Amino acid sequence: MSGFAADKSHPRYQSLLMRHRLELAAKAGMLADSALIAHGRGEAYDYLLGEKTIPSAHDATMEALAQLQNANSAVISLNGNAIALAGMELMQLASLLQIPVEVNIFYRTPERMSALLNHLSKIKSDNELDVEILGGNPNAKIPGLEGPRANCCKSGIYDSDVILVPLEDGDRCEALVAMGKTVLVIDLNPLSRSAKMGSVTIVDELSRVANNLLVGAMQKITRKPSSNYDNSQHLQAAIDYITSTLSSKGK
Amino acid sequence: MSGFAADKSHPRYQSLLMRHRLELAAKAGMLADSALIAHGRGEAYDYLLGEKTIPSAHDATMEALAQLQNANSAVISLNGNAIALAGMELMQLASLLQIPVEVNIFYRTPERMSALLNHLSKIKSDNELDVEILGGNPNAKIPGLEGPRANCCKSGIYDSDVILVPLEDGDRCEALVAMGKTVLVIDLNPLSRSAKMGSVTIVDELSRVANNLLVGAMQKITRKPSSNYDNSQHLQAAIDYITSTLSSKGK
Repeated sequence: MSGFAADKSHPRYQSLLMRHRLELAAKAGMLADSALIAHGRGEAYDYLLGEKTIPSAHDATMEALAQLQNANSAVISLNGNAIALAGMELMQLASLLQIPVEVNIFYRTPERMSALLNHLSKIKSDNELDVEILGGNPNAKIPGLEGPRANCCKSGIYDSDVILVPLEDGDRCEALVAMGKTVLVIDLNPLSRSAKMGSVTIVDELSRVANNLLVGAMQKITRKPSSNYDNSQHLQAAIDYITSTLSSKGK
Repeated sequence: MSGFAADKSHPRYQSLLMRHRLELAAKAGMLADSALIAHGRGEAYDYLLGEKTIPSAHDATMEALAQLQNANSAVISLNGNAIALAGMELMQLASLLQIPVEVNIFYRTPERMSALLNHLSKIKSDNELDVEILGGNPNAKIPGLEGPRANCCKSGIYDSDVILVPLEDGDRCEALVAMGKTVLVIDLNPLSRSAKMGSVTIVDELSRVANNLLVGAMQKITRKPSSNYDNSQHLQAAIDYITSTLSSKGK
């Protein structure tokens, strides 16, 4: 990673690396103004999670993988922060699972869309990945959303039965759930609307989740989705973990 | 406030106003790259505090005011985020209390220092305030810190017995405590090193604290500092409040 000089043994190496990836993406015009503030909010929750994958998050990740593997038509929705933080890993995952990705951003401008699409195309060609990259030519609308943020692709988000949405806005998450889809959310805040809306919510840092999904997919272990998966129980486990961190670090 | 169009009745008006102030400061070259991420971390904790001044924070604020009013030589230390978020209110406070402010930033560059000093000078002249603005010509060093971040002014930070440090870095907070000063910390994270180091730590959002201090100072009620102020008890109250938010919002 060019220009990133932190030592891997630094206790906050991973966190510094994520910041560096965001800085590069900001310079490349891939991010909205609010992206860094949103990342900071995530950092606070990750600190309270001990900056690691807690057991309930790992369980949710494996359930999400099972949902992606058993879908009729799965898709990974990508926004600016998701592409900045784990664009490579999520493209590799899409390639392994043979599902498309779709760029779908909240503050849609032609400049940001083309910066993001070009970045994904470069990842695809540099790594010889086999992934369809959607989003450049939207031809459908998500019902219940206003303006350009409703735009999507019929063969991607619109027709999907299972959708992975890393770092998604609450309104859009709600609209996707209302379409009857199985919505797999990645969000560090277990109290967010997206987290509560999700069919399966992974309360964990995106690059760790992406790596866990990749490892699972590479092992080619396919399991069926649980028949009685309880998302609120998993959210409660994350809240309980944060509460225990607060009491122990407060001592 | 030019360009800020949110309705005051918007439930997140205050939070949106703070973001707008940061955007303006970023455009004016007043902020380091990490400023927006740091602000996002603060937003997450403020959300967990219900975006309001909790009773223990109000009590800490009144204790901080008593310390400032009874000091031999008090000073308000100002960095980029503090000036962006509450520069006006803190300058008014300094004027009322007849104490200096000193610009003291972690990533010190001549450009940022002059952007910040000019911004404060403009607040001073526009509002006819009577405040000495220090920091432009450092002539002393804070022991125990390396490089430009040790720089300070003898008649300001160096010789002060009581210092208000909004949003301060942990290392510098520790160095100021080691100099024997009474250090008044404003920090939304009750677990941070600065929060734990402080003599009096106010776990609250900066612009709310600044307004509370201003109201207290304008009422001209002067009280003595408590002889048995317990900072860790106040931090624990903030942690308990956050824990209760987590349990209630998680339901």
